[in-house]
Amino acid sequence: MKKATEAGDQVLPPHEAEIWRELGRLVHALPRLLEEDMLQATCVTLTEFSVLSVLSEAPGRRLRMTEIATRTGLTPSRITRLVSALTAKSLVAKERDTSDGRGNVTALTDEGLAELESAWPTHRASARRHFLDHLPEGSAPTLAAALRSVTASLIPDRSRSAD
Amino acid sequence: MKKATEAGDQVLPPHEAEIWRELGRLVHALPRLLEEDMLQATCVTLTEFSVLSVLSEAPGRRLRMTEIATRTGLTPSRITRLVSALTAKSLVAKERDTSDGRGNVTALTDEGLAELESAWPTHRASARRHFLDHLPEGSAPTLAAALRSVTASLIPDRSRSAD
Repeated sequence: MKKATEAGDQVLPPHEAEIWRELGRLVHALPRLLEEDMLQATCVTLTEFSVLSVLSEAPGRRLRMTEIATRTGLTPSRITRLVSALTAKSLVAKERDTSDGRGNVTALTDEGLAELESAWPTHRASARRHFLDHLPEGSAPTLAAALRSVTASLIPDRSRSAD
Repeated sequence: MKKATEAGDQVLPPHEAEIWRELGRLVHALPRLLEEDMLQATCVTLTEFSVLSVLSEAPGRRLRMTEIATRTGLTPSRITRLVSALTAKSLVAKERDTSDGRGNVTALTDEGLAELESAWPTHRASARRHFLDHLPEGSAPTLAAALRSVTASLIPDRSRSAD
C-alpha cells in the first residue's frame, strides 16, 4: 500500500477530505469576520444578535433558555450569560411561563426587536459579502438540505428541552 | 406589502435564510463537540490538531506562520500562541527559512507527526459522527465546491503572505 502525501487524505475520501478541510477554515474565520462587521455598526455582538434573532422567530417572541440554546447551537451556560447581558440592555425580559405556570421564559422586548431590525441590514450585507454571494449558482438547495440534515443530528431534539 | 413573520425571512430568500440559520447553529455547536472528543482521547486541542494537520500537508512539512494562519482560517496572533504551545510540547520546531535565508518557518517534528497520526482515528470518527455521516447521499461534491468557493473569497490569497 502506498502512503498518501496528505494526512487528511489518508483517512477520508477526497470529497470528504476537502469538505472537512474547508469547513475547518470556515468555522475559524467566518464568525470573526461577521463579528467585526457587527461591532462596527451595531450595539450587539454576533451571539447576542443570534439570541435576539431566534426569539423574534418564536411564537409570541418568547422561548425557554434551553430552547434558545438548541436553536442557536450555544451551550445553556453561555445562553444564561447572554440573556443576563441582554436583560441589562433591556433588549429581553424574563417572564413567568404562562403555558404551565412553572419556570421562566425569555421574551424579546420592543427595544430588542427594534435593535434586531436595525442590525439586520448590517448582518445581511455581512452574510452576503462573506458567504452567500460566493455560493456557486444553483447550489443553495443542496447546501440547505445538507446543513439541515447535519444540524438535526448534531443538536438535541427541541421537544426534549425543559428548563 | 405584508410583513414576514420571521426576521431572517424579511431580509433573505428562503433557501438562503435556512442556510444562514443552520450554518449559525453549526458554527456554534460543531467545534465544541469536536473539541470534547479530541480532549478525551488525545494530547492536543482541536486548533493544535489543525496546525499539525496543515503542516503535515505542506511540502517538507514546513510553513511560515502567516501561511498556517491562511490555511487554518485562524488569526496570525492566535497562530503565534499555538506554535509556542506546540513548540513547548516538541511537536513543532522553528527553523530558518532556507528558501530565502530570511525569517523563520515552523516545521512539524517526528513527534508532531506521530501525535497527529495517533489523533487522526479519533478525529475521523468525530468528523463522521457529528458531520460527514449525516450528509444526504450525493451532496458531497456540491458541498465541497460551495465551501471551496466561499473560503477562497473569505481568506486572503496564500501567495500574498509574508512573515
